[in-house]
Amino acid sequence: MYAIDAVKRIASTPLTARVLLREYSQRIEEVEPHVQAWETLDVARALDEARACDLGPTRGILHGIPIGVKDIIDAAGLPTRCGSPIYASQVASADAACVALAKAAGAIVMGKTVTTELAWFHPGKTRNPHNLAHTPGGSSSGSAAAVAAGMVPIAFGTQTAGSVIRPAAYCGVVGFKPSFGLVPRAGVKSQSESLDTIGWMANCVDDIALMAEALTWDTSFRLPDTPVAPRIGVLELPEHDQADAEMLSAIESALRIFASAGANIRSVSPPAAFNALNAAQTTVQLFEAARSYHCEYSQHKHALSARLAGLLEEGRLRTWDQYRAARAVIDTCKAFLPRVFDGVDVLLLPAASGAAPAGLEATGDPVFNRAATALHLPALTLPHFRTGAGMPLGIQFWGWSDVALLQAARWAEQALLRHC
Amino acid sequence: MYAIDAVKRIASTPLTARVLLREYSQRIEEVEPHVQAWETLDVARALDEARACDLGPTRGILHGIPIGVKDIIDAAGLPTRCGSPIYASQVASADAACVALAKAAGAIVMGKTVTTELAWFHPGKTRNPHNLAHTPGGSSSGSAAAVAAGMVPIAFGTQTAGSVIRPAAYCGVVGFKPSFGLVPRAGVKSQSESLDTIGWMANCVDDIALMAEALTWDTSFRLPDTPVAPRIGVLELPEHDQADAEMLSAIESALRIFASAGANIRSVSPPAAFNALNAAQTTVQLFEAARSYHCEYSQHKHALSARLAGLLEEGRLRTWDQYRAARAVIDTCKAFLPRVFDGVDVLLLPAASGAAPAGLEATGDPVFNRAATALHLPALTLPHFRTGAGMPLGIQFWGWSDVALLQAARWAEQALLRHC
Repeated sequence: MYAIDAVKRIASTPLTARVLLREYSQRIEEVEPHVQAWETLDVARALDEARACDLGPTRGILHGIPIGVKDIIDAAGLPTRCGSPIYASQVASADAACVALAKAAGAIVMGKTVTTELAWFHPGKTRNPHNLAHTPGGSSSGSAAAVAAGMVPIAFGTQTAGSVIRPAAYCGVVGFKPSFGLVPRAGVKSQSESLDTIGWMANCVDDIALMAEALTWDTSFRLPDTPVAPRIGVLELPEHDQADAEMLSAIESALRIFASAGANIRSVSPPAAFNALNAAQTTVQLFEAARSYHCEYSQHKHALSARLAGLLEEGRLRTWDQYRAARAVIDTCKAFLPRVFDGVDVLLLPAASGAAPAGLEATGDPVFNRAATALHLPALTLPHFRTGAGMPLGIQFWGWSDVALLQAARWAEQALLRHC
Repeated sequence: MYAIDAVKRIASTPLTARVLLREYSQRIEEVEPHVQAWETLDVARALDEARACDLGPTRGILHGIPIGVKDIIDAAGLPTRCGSPIYASQVASADAACVALAKAAGAIVMGKTVTTELAWFHPGKTRNPHNLAHTPGGSSSGSAAAVAAGMVPIAFGTQTAGSVIRPAAYCGVVGFKPSFGLVPRAGVKSQSESLDTIGWMANCVDDIALMAEALTWDTSFRLPDTPVAPRIGVLELPEHDQADAEMLSAIESALRIFASAGANIRSVSPPAAFNALNAAQTTVQLFEAARSYHCEYSQHKHALSARLAGLLEEGRLRTWDQYRAARAVIDTCKAFLPRVFDGVDVLLLPAASGAAPAGLEATGDPVFNRAATALHLPALTLPHFRTGAGMPLGIQFWGWSDVALLQAARWAEQALLRHC
């Protein structure tokens, strides 16, 4: 069920928040043993909250909606384990700002979802609901899987390279990484200050927009019922040839559908400066994370995976000159954005190189996600396409503004739903 | 004693880290009952650490140096109370990145220093060591007072408006707010993401530079023994007439001393865009803080001071349009900086409107600090001047880069020490 429908049904009875909560908790009982999306579940307290919702006045636009919270984001009274034994017993005394904002709008925290180790590459226990032998993607693995498996309608993630868009695409849900600065990061474990961005997953664009309004108090996120057809730029990043045949075919199909639904479509070539963008994002992430995670590295190295320790060692070796040069590359690319978006509302590109790879030892490659994160651009992935083997294939939009992106994505979603 | 001398004496005996630690702890016993700079003291564990320092190899450039940590910054095993009853029992399970970096260089955490309520205006218990009836300034009240009273040689603060430079100036110590992004903020309570900056206080510029190298691993902070005379721009902000007669006289005296010591001095007029800069910084801080502190406001309003609740309510009313306009004002002013710094190495201006005001109910006005914080410029205050009543008067430098600022400040400090 979409959150936006659930809210209406709770408001007009016969659905109570408690009944809704029970439905989701039953679904969790069924599928969680297989999917393993949760680090900590808090169903009893969530039920109490649902009961309180039913007894009191409407709390806000998320009244009674259960949500998942990535386990690097504080939720009061629950541990924030960050996917690391270092934080096994660390209980948050307060909500992160984004959780407090969602709760104030009526959301109910169902629990904490699995993150990869310290929100980087080393995977947690979560499996892809579409095929348990495949990765759900990362680092917001549990949030994507929980939404995909119907255990909550909305869940928070964070993205530093591709940690919202990639798992959402792999798990076949809508994922949204807003523009940098839209949502406050207070109470979120910091990895890379100039990149870390809070995002969320849901099953439709309306639910994404509902959460955006709850978090920003900005009513511009109430999308028009009949969005106009957007002008879509088809972007071929320098890494375009890393997309596989099934992904390219999904993009082709999407373009045919959007064109026949009335979208104006043109090709957009990125400026040459973009050739250095993914490497610049990587340098910034490595440099900043090695410093942000200095406590973990210098005091708890034995508790880090070899993979994470290696990344932090790589980051320690990056110099200030290299870091400043990488930041300058990103700034140069940002300066081209008005030209890149000239005459288009959104850019269309793959959300990942293909569907979720088989295996649980890796979480896939953020090759199609690094650039938007570095550029602070809002990005959104839509599901609706599948591989021959039935795995979800996400297409991705980048927007010039959060609202413009969600409007275009809602139009595109309707076009896809009519055809898929 | 300066940290830089203590490190040398520990390395060459006869001073051991333990003896040094005892000296500081005795000083704390003497003066803390009057000054009340500490929220939490951890002397026993600090002594254990000092003993371990003496037994092992040199840990780094801060080997055996006790430090204070503002109580919005996590130090493992100690509470992070944030100057608020909301966090009375919140114990940090890990060090903030800056604390871990300092510890890895050999620093020993003596305890947590008093912050104003959630690092804003409502004061804590701390008094100005130069006159106990005067404010120490805020929000890094305890750190400034602890260094001024000789209880630790270096202490961390943070600045969102004027919370490092102002208390340092009021307490008569050297205060440094580096450029935005120099020091990672992981593990620090977030108030305003685009403004919050970690800084520190010490008794000389060399100690400031020592900590800068420890936190950044950047050896450019090893300042030359004989710095060259800088080119000093005398900056009159639009708020210049808020400086009182004694402050203006201190600036005049400083300029005479710097000129006779060989500095090239010229007047610098800020561009007209600067007229809107302080108001823009205020809007950004109010807007971001109201969102970052939404948990405190929506769930613990009864535990907030009326002053803080009022600020958060003001921030809630600022719209996205107002916020974006304020960010645009700051960006416009940033674009003028190359012209403002054209031909000068540093800018000189008051660190505050005057000396620390009498009374403990307010912490003074950040009127001369908001601009550098918003512009992400490094700023430093030097003591050495006094009012007729004997209270410290801080002069302030802004730099184009952190290293250039510290070099110029070290030259200026030597010139002042020869004359004061």
